[in-house]
Amino acid sequence: MSTTVQLAVIPGDGIGPEVIAEAVKVLDTVAAGSDLAFEKTYFSLGADRYLATGDVLTDDDLAAIAGHDAILLGAVGGRPGDPRLTGANIERGLLLKLRFSLDHYVNLRPTTLFPGIASPLANPGDVDFVVVREGTEGPYVGNGGAIRQGTPHEIANEVSVNTAYGVERVVRYAFEQAEQRRKKLTLVHKTNVLTFSGGLWKRIVDAVAAEHPDVAVDYLHVDAATIFLVTDPARFDVIVTDNLFGDILTDLAAAISGGIGLAASGNLNPAGEFPSMFEPVHGSAPDIAGQQKADPTAAILSVALLLRHLGARELAERVEQAVTSDLAARSGDARTTSEIGDAIAARVAQ
Amino acid sequence: MSTTVQLAVIPGDGIGPEVIAEAVKVLDTVAAGSDLAFEKTYFSLGADRYLATGDVLTDDDLAAIAGHDAILLGAVGGRPGDPRLTGANIERGLLLKLRFSLDHYVNLRPTTLFPGIASPLANPGDVDFVVVREGTEGPYVGNGGAIRQGTPHEIANEVSVNTAYGVERVVRYAFEQAEQRRKKLTLVHKTNVLTFSGGLWKRIVDAVAAEHPDVAVDYLHVDAATIFLVTDPARFDVIVTDNLFGDILTDLAAAISGGIGLAASGNLNPAGEFPSMFEPVHGSAPDIAGQQKADPTAAILSVALLLRHLGARELAERVEQAVTSDLAARSGDARTTSEIGDAIAARVAQ
Ligand SMILES: CC(C)[C@H](C(=O)O)[C@@H](O)C(=O)O
Ligand SMILES: CC(C)[C@H](C(=O)O)[C@@H](O)C(=O)O
Repeated sequence: MSTTVQLAVIPGDGIGPEVIAEAVKVLDTVAAGSDLAFEKTYFSLGADRYLATGDVLTDDDLAAIAGHDAILLGAVGGRPGDPRLTGANIERGLLLKLRFSLDHYVNLRPTTLFPGIASPLANPGDVDFVVVREGTEGPYVGNGGAIRQGTPHEIANEVSVNTAYGVERVVRYAFEQAEQRRKKLTLVHKTNVLTFSGGLWKRIVDAVAAEHPDVAVDYLHVDAATIFLVTDPARFDVIVTDNLFGDILTDLAAAISGGIGLAASGNLNPAGEFPSMFEPVHGSAPDIAGQQKADPTAAILSVALLLRHLGARELAERVEQAVTSDLAARSGDARTTSEIGDAIAARVAQ
Repeated sequence: MSTTVQLAVIPGDGIGPEVIAEAVKVLDTVAAGSDLAFEKTYFSLGADRYLATGDVLTDDDLAAIAGHDAILLGAVGGRPGDPRLTGANIERGLLLKLRFSLDHYVNLRPTTLFPGIASPLANPGDVDFVVVREGTEGPYVGNGGAIRQGTPHEIANEVSVNTAYGVERVVRYAFEQAEQRRKKLTLVHKTNVLTFSGGLWKRIVDAVAAEHPDVAVDYLHVDAATIFLVTDPARFDVIVTDNLFGDILTDLAAAISGGIGLAASGNLNPAGEFPSMFEPVHGSAPDIAGQQKADPTAAILSVALLLRHLGARELAERVEQAVTSDLAARSGDARTTSEIGDAIAARVAQ
């Protein structure tokens, strides 16, 4: 029996196409001879597409992407300050539009300090946790506005919208993760200041915790959480948090575990109504684009998350093991993007 | 000629009274024989006062405090989860109420890695920057609400309010700081997601930058800023940012420079219409309260900020030098809170 997965591939801008080429190389290698086959459709989206056509993401693009089983995305975003991009917000109009339209309510971001990888921390200890970041609410909803813009009387508001429905489903997912891991869950918020949204999160975590008596539950204000991420990251197992705090904490988490070049993520719709999307946490890094300098490891680890999401746990582990061995063997990496991809693919094939 | 400063002292809860006792000891020592005299009024405010009287901060308290020239605050907040405190939000009702009512639009938080102090970073480099955090706007305004609270249909909103007036005055202050330092200013925000508030901040920084051609201006998204704080903190000189991002970044900044026990802050009303307030960044730490275990250094460094604010630069430097020498001489500190205060006061007296 073999299953064919319809995969939408969005290489994007900057280093996106380079790292996605390696991710696809590894995906094809691990899929060969397995009972999973991938049929890929490439979508040309991002700053380059916008500059060529004026479109960021059309309804047709969205419908076509939504018809796939899963999505692999590189990175989107043009050169910062490019005057031709003023007015187009590629992040909001493309990346966030996909996350919101495809109801990616779980943004899953694992953090592991792999053997052989240097951390900026003197004593990182055992870093192995996962951030479950809410993906469809909070300050990210785009519910902002301004009056008297450009005058000394300008007022600009941003509304963070949080619902019991939206918080409960992501909190339930986080508890399920904790059950399968070290059974520890930390809610991160700022309940003492954001009393309404924080209160909602706190009450829902407390309620769901009652159904998981074996999971130890902890709460940290977001400011304190950043302290522990640098002084004692080993204390974390599953962190559940809102969209904005999750954005901030996962970059910090990536930094302490060897950098954004290794951080993978899944934008999940666990309900399965829409395709989930897998992407490295890093951006398009236009300054090193096209130079074969980017590390494709985060994109390749995102393929492992994709495989795991599809239930192909054994294939996912083969990719993760190949990455782990490749990282352990590194010493001041002078390899090109495709040399790293080749090396990992070769380990997968072994 | 001698000046008498009317100082409101709010020791607060937990370790607050212990660290404030040492801060006052150092203040009295450095003031003795100078042309500055301090007349202190103590205010009993915080969780203990609330439990005793039901009051958090009355209009009379506020009016009395506002009549002073400056404020020294320890820490406020009861034991987390104390059921008797449910319903009283001491942080919002006291600390934030003071900051907002006294128009503390600059929350000044210097970060220095003192000689002899261990950082959790393997190679911290030269850490010496100051965060200018906006103190009266943003997501901290308390403009939130909820409907259908406690039901599966709950919606909880929080509004971040940002004004040209509020942003411009703090940005101007930050540029003035940069002029007196290494002439580098970094705006931290999340302009790609919070487009309205971020756009306002960005435009105002760009406009004020034109008046300071000698200041190098940089922009970082808040997530990226956390990365640089652990991989290259030496790159920062002055960071200007909003209320919430400033809260997060300054705890992280404290962590990389030896911990929250050393982090001082000034809540400033540079216009001088209201008294400014000086406080350690740390909280009330009820778990170690009354045990003489707290490090009073952050409170003592807050006294240095107070002196600098009063124009007593030489006295401020004496306190800072005493702290620097004390820290350099430490090796696994087993001293009590008051022993540390005594030691620093003795160095100040030398
Ligand atoms: C590019 C940006 C909109 C995005 C976010 O803020 O979510 C990125 O930082 C991330 O973490 O995936
Ligand atoms: C106690 C809390 C309200 C406060 C804040 O968030 O500003 C604290 O974290 C700080 O940084 O001074």
